[in-house]
Parts: sequence; C-alpha cells; structure tokens
Amino acid sequence: MVGPPPAVAAVRVAVRAALRDLPTGSLVLVACSGGPDSVALAAATAFEAPRAGRSAGLVTVDHALQPGSAERAAEVATWGTKLGLEPSVAVRVSVGTGGGPEAAARHARYAALDAAAAAHGAAAVLLGHTADDQAETVLLGLARGSGARSAAGMAPVRGVYRRPLLGLPRALVHEAVEEHPVWHDPHNVDPAYARSRVRALLPALEEAAGGGLLAGLARSATLLRADADLLDDLAADLLDRATVPDPAGGVHRVLDARILAAAHPALRGRVLHRWALELGVPAGSLASAHVDAVDALVTRWRGQGPVHLPTGIRIARVRGALRRDDRLP
Amino acid sequence: MVGPPPAVAAVRVAVRAALRDLPTGSLVLVACSGGPDSVALAAATAFEAPRAGRSAGLVTVDHALQPGSAERAAEVATWGTKLGLEPSVAVRVSVGTGGGPEAAARHARYAALDAAAAAHGAAAVLLGHTADDQAETVLLGLARGSGARSAAGMAPVRGVYRRPLLGLPRALVHEAVEEHPVWHDPHNVDPAYARSRVRALLPALEEAAGGGLLAGLARSATLLRADADLLDDLAADLLDRATVPDPAGGVHRVLDARILAAAHPALRGRVLHRWALELGVPAGSLASAHVDAVDALVTRWRGQGPVHLPTGIRIARVRGALRRDDRLP
Repeated sequence: MVGPPPAVAAVRVAVRAALRDLPTGSLVLVACSGGPDSVALAAATAFEAPRAGRSAGLVTVDHALQPGSAERAAEVATWGTKLGLEPSVAVRVSVGTGGGPEAAARHARYAALDAAAAAHGAAAVLLGHTADDQAETVLLGLARGSGARSAAGMAPVRGVYRRPLLGLPRALVHEAVEEHPVWHDPHNVDPAYARSRVRALLPALEEAAGGGLLAGLARSATLLRADADLLDDLAADLLDRATVPDPAGGVHRVLDARILAAAHPALRGRVLHRWALELGVPAGSLASAHVDAVDALVTRWRGQGPVHLPTGIRIARVRGALRRDDRLP
Repeated sequence: MVGPPPAVAAVRVAVRAALRDLPTGSLVLVACSGGPDSVALAAATAFEAPRAGRSAGLVTVDHALQPGSAERAAEVATWGTKLGLEPSVAVRVSVGTGGGPEAAARHARYAALDAAAAAHGAAAVLLGHTADDQAETVLLGLARGSGARSAAGMAPVRGVYRRPLLGLPRALVHEAVEEHPVWHDPHNVDPAYARSRVRALLPALEEAAGGGLLAGLARSATLLRADADLLDDLAADLLDRATVPDPAGGVHRVLDARILAAAHPALRGRVLHRWALELGVPAGSLASAHVDAVDALVTRWRGQGPVHLPTGIRIARVRGALRRDDRLP
C-alpha cells in the first residue's frame, strides 16, 4: 500500500492530534481563506475528521475589501462542499478602521468566526497558521516591545481556536495542497502591511542566523508563553493581595503602595498594567511609558502629582494608596 | 557658551549615569576595541570620570587573529594614553576553538578583561555595546530558542561590567566619535559570523516592522530580563523544595518527582535544566530536547528507562525520585 506524500501525511498527523481531545460526534470548523495553508488544513480535516468520528465544516470570511472578494469566498465555500465539509459557508463582514487595517480586518474576522462557531455549535475552529506565521508574530511582537506575552506569539489552543499547523514550516504545508485549488490573498504580499514586509525578509534572516531561526523562534515562543502564563497567575495573586478597602467608598479598586513596592518588578509592572485596564484605559492606548510613570508613584515616590493616562484617567498616590483620581482637574 | 554636539552630549550623559554609583576615587576601565562605539565610550569616559572624581583607564584586547592586530592594539593603547586614560594597556590573548569562533573570541576577551580589572583594582569595566548590538543579541538569542534568558539580551550591569550605551542607537554613538581615530574591526562585517550577517539585515528589518524595531527589541529585552530574574529565583526555590535525601547516600542531588509534577511547567523546565548542569552536563551541549526528555520522566511516566544526556550522564526515575544513574550500562 502506498501512503500519502510526506507533506500530506504531516498535515494529517497534526490535524489528527488537534482533534483527539474533542468529544466524539462534535463539529469542528476550518477557517479557510482559500490560501494554501488553510486549503491544506481543510483538505486534511475533511480526511481526518470522519475517521476520528468528528464532523467537519468550513467557514470562509469575505472581508469585502477588494473587488471580486464575494465571488472568491463563494468559490471557497463551494470547494469545501465538494470536499464533504458540512456546513461550508461564506460570511461577509464589514471591516472597520480601529487600530489600523490589519487589526481591523483581524477583529472583524474573529468576530465572524466566533459567531459561526456559536451558530453551528462547533467544538473547535481550526486555523491554518504555520511556524512561519508564528515567527512573524514573534518578531512583530518583540518590535512592539511589550514583553513576554507579545513575544510568546500565537497559542496552539486558545478558547475555541486551535492551530494544528503551528509546528510545521509553511513550505511543507504548501506541498500538502497537492491538486486542490488555491486562491491567493493579495494582502499576504502587500507591502503596505508590516507582516508582509517582515515575511519577505524571513528567508534572508533565517540564512543570516545560520538556519534554525524558524524552529528557534517557535521554541522561544513556547517557552515564553509558559513563562507568561505563570507570571500572569502570580500577578493576579499580587493584585488581590495589594487591594485595600477604599476609605472613600469609591467604585474603583485601590492598591497598597507598600505591598507593590515589596513585589518583584516583573510582577509589579503586570499588576499596574492590568489595573490600568480595569480602571478603563483602552488596551491599545496603554504604553509601557504609562505603566512606568505609575510605577514611579510606587518606587520613586517624592510627593509627585497624579499620573495622566490616556482618555483622561488619572492615578494618584494618596496616603500610601494608589487610586484613580476623579477630582476635577 | 556652546555645548558639545548632541551625540557627544548623549554619550557623556550615559557615561555619567553609569559612573554615579561607583565609589569616589575608584578606577573604571573602558574596554576599547578601537571601533567607533568603544572609541566614543572611551572619549566620553576620559571627559566625565575626572569631573565625577573617578579615574579612568583603557584596556584593549589583541585577539591575535589577524596580521597587524598587535600594532593596532598598541595604537589604541597609545591613543588612550594621549586622552589621559591611565592605565592604557593592550593585552594579547590566545583564542581557543571551543563553541565556535565568535564564542571562543568572546571567552578569551572577557577572561582578559576580568584579569585586567583584578590586576588594576577596577571598580567597573565599561563596554561599548549599543542598542543595535542589543537588538542583534536578542534576535540571535531567540533563534537559539532557549527561552527568556537568551531573549533578554545583555544586562546593563552584570558583575564588574557596565554597558552605558545600551540605550543609544549605534548611528548616534558613531556621530559622537568626532575627530577621534577609529580602527575598524574586520570581524564586524565578516559574513562568516552570524552576528555580522544579522547586523547587515537589521536596517531592512527595522523598515519592514514599520520603525521602532530597535527600541522595541531593547524594551522587550528589559522586560524579559526582569521576568527571567524572577523565574530563576522561583526555580532556585523549587529546586531546594524538590530535593530529597538520597537513601543510597550518593553524592548527587536527588529530586522528588511528585513535587516537580505539581510545579508550573515554566519552573519545572528551569529546575531540570539547572539540575542537569549541576550533575555535570556541559551548558553548551544541553539542548531543550534533553530537558524535555527528563521532563517526560516526571509528567509522562509510564515506567520508561533512563534518559541519556550528553557526555554519558543518565537520569533515571526510581521509586518516585529522579536521580543520576551511575550503574554500568
């Protein structure tokens, strides 16, 4: 008996592993852009799911950003049906502008996938990200300079989402497409997108680093994700321990500056970041310089005035406690 | 009064901050290769140290790897003397081959700097690494895939060493060289070195990431270093807690598998790594796959045999304890 080509086998093995702990009889949806990565993923899932006693469907998101995108999405859905994926649907979304074009498209896409998973009662949504996507994400996360969580890249499993191909090089996944049709996404090579530009440089960087960059970045991401999980747990504990009753009876959490001062800087930074979000500062506008300024109220206290955070929120230190300052300016 | 050019002022400010907490009257040595970064550092230190009540000297290391290196080192030392740095000495070293040419040269260089610091009773040795060097180090560390510590790059202060320029872009530091002579190091552009190749790609990567890569990598490194410090402390605690008396009375530490199994994976990996080094596995030959295999004795125990580590060291699980297995194979 002749088995499938090695690339097809590798993708199928990865999908099989991702299906293993889902309930028998449950539905998995493949998020398929029509690009080669998610086409290979959809084909492997159509093969593996019935053999594993799960059913599999397909969702393709029409971002409605280019002419012809609706036709393209309809073709992808039709191809999914031919492959035996059921349901196989195209969902049209309306992309906003918040946070830049890449973030806005991503936001709209995940909202549509969330809704599709809920509507069809899917136990999981499979995403086609490869080791190359992970490397790009890690580099872009590091460039943002926001610490372990952003350098940790994408999780193999997060909520309803699973990324079975995260350990496989993109080139291998592309080989697994075989005779299936692919629809190339012009965004993937559009130099207006930071990710596309970083993608174009990765092969040169891989060669420069002496090979193994992709695998190294993926391994680093896995290690950093474990670190970030533990540190987030420890920070949640510290936030609870540092919380003190508010003598003024306000609605916002008040923190004890001495407890924070005694904590490790790696945890204090996380606690202050988390607290600022809780107080209403939008995540996208909270920079490390803001957290550093609040940290100075704890560690470099010399009676300074309140720290101004985005959207007009102020933090003051009053009698050894950090609190949101809601007095009129 | 006309002040110094902005680049010179920036380097001097950075040096002044690095000298601040050293004892008055103490000696700092500048490690100067003759390249523009460390020439700018030496010039700023010669200016700042006397004004801050410290004395400053220079050490240049002759790696003896190229023809003319001894003459070059002598010229750098002579230039240091003219600048008022005292002592200003060239030290010739013999570079071995262990760990590849870059690691061997680095090892010999730091051994010579350690010895010079001890011989002259220096309170600190200043190194000329810039934000660009930090970015290269972070990228190469990530490519090795060995987690937060290697992604954390170089520390601003570590033992006797200080890196005052770690926050300044290389281009700015180069501007601060002004009329001083520089001796270009052929290694810095030698494509045989991974660092040189990554260096050549950084400007393109900076542009691809949309600017701010250098600053982002530096900020990521700072955050990851704080994380790594805390996690190392927690791992040291766990190693102590997991240590159990050896009923066989052996000389090597024995660990309780159940205590390890209950620990967070991010700490367990660090503990097993640390323990393997303690048992005698050389750091350079211990890969994450080895640590994973020992981890499987803890978390995926099904009665498997000993794990073979480099240089013939074996780890076995015996009655709930991990131990070095010194029986004949």
